[in-house]
Amino acid sequence: MEKINVRKRILSANERYALKNSELLAQRKQLCLNMISSPGSGKTTLLARTCSELNTEIRIGVVEGDIQTDIDAERIRATNAPAVQINTDGACHLSAAQVSSALDQLPLDDLDMIFIENVGNLVCPGAFELGEHGKIVVLSVAEGDDKPIKYPGIFAKSMVLLVSKIDLLDGGHVDFDLDRVKTDARRLNKGVEIIPVSAKTGEGMAQWYDWLREKTRQTRA
Amino acid sequence: MEKINVRKRILSANERYALKNSELLAQRKQLCLNMISSPGSGKTTLLARTCSELNTEIRIGVVEGDIQTDIDAERIRATNAPAVQINTDGACHLSAAQVSSALDQLPLDDLDMIFIENVGNLVCPGAFELGEHGKIVVLSVAEGDDKPIKYPGIFAKSMVLLVSKIDLLDGGHVDFDLDRVKTDARRLNKGVEIIPVSAKTGEGMAQWYDWLREKTRQTRA
Repeated sequence: MEKINVRKRILSANERYALKNSELLAQRKQLCLNMISSPGSGKTTLLARTCSELNTEIRIGVVEGDIQTDIDAERIRATNAPAVQINTDGACHLSAAQVSSALDQLPLDDLDMIFIENVGNLVCPGAFELGEHGKIVVLSVAEGDDKPIKYPGIFAKSMVLLVSKIDLLDGGHVDFDLDRVKTDARRLNKGVEIIPVSAKTGEGMAQWYDWLREKTRQTRA
Repeated sequence: MEKINVRKRILSANERYALKNSELLAQRKQLCLNMISSPGSGKTTLLARTCSELNTEIRIGVVEGDIQTDIDAERIRATNAPAVQINTDGACHLSAAQVSSALDQLPLDDLDMIFIENVGNLVCPGAFELGEHGKIVVLSVAEGDDKPIKYPGIFAKSMVLLVSKIDLLDGGHVDFDLDRVKTDARRLNKGVEIIPVSAKTGEGMAQWYDWLREKTRQTRA
């Protein structure tokens, strides 16, 4: 019995904060997206380019989750977007309580939307709701095209799949079958939006920005 | 008090199995290495090439850990090395109990050494001892050179750091400062052996094989 109580208390703490975050965001009509991927898929580079290129039309704030260091928040701040760094100090995912405290530190009145960049981990972050409107999973072509079937959880739950680093496909530097990924991801998640992008060359970014504009507009409406 | 008991029971179950595994391996003088990385760093490709090229001198068996699918074990078996697949069904790391059961299924009498390929995750697997002799961390150059400082735990604990997919460095397809990685990894772990490899071109594999031969020999002695 005591075991069950302990577990219930932990779950409801995260859920309570997730609810608090989602209520705050709903009240303010601010879109909030939880970005999840393996380490090194290029989340921060994607976000930095997105902040730079959209800052005159969509004011973006970022919550950066990392086990250690604040280099990701620094990279976002270099684009003039506000960023709050959370260090989980060994923990493998962000909690809703950490996000709640980060939202308190962001200048929300000056923002249209918020990205949460979760700890680099394709498994655990997907299991913890943060109060976001939706999840974005990023898969770099260097990671291989078998990832949707090997790590189905996060692909099944995400609004958008950004297939990143597609510049590496030119010249056949990596073996990656984009059609296989699309088929496997849609088998797990019929409605998932799949956008191949390169934050290096800019390819595909316009489609990503269109999706983001529309989603921000819907949330504001 | 009850909370503390629950936690103690869980920890000691893994530790008990880890001890059982390490005693079995010590008795049989069989080297066992726990390979850990992000998803898509190329662990299976590295292992498949290693099994193929060393099979006349070192008889290798593999324990494959994945959340779902048995495609990695199939890839290893295609090299004629025996492989046992464990599906964690959502869990983000292998447990020592799962490895114990996999060791029971491998033909240990016909093997010189065993690789455990853990679930693709740079965070959680490092916290669970499996009874292995040591950990091998694999970092692909596509993941970026900031990973040792951002995910220090596993870099601090590993015997060997394999820097994989170095073929992508030729022609500057990815930005990756190998010297920075070496410096940061050695700051965390003075004695770590760092071997840059490409399982595609074969570059660096001879050095990896030499290390493996020597370690297998030491364990047998």
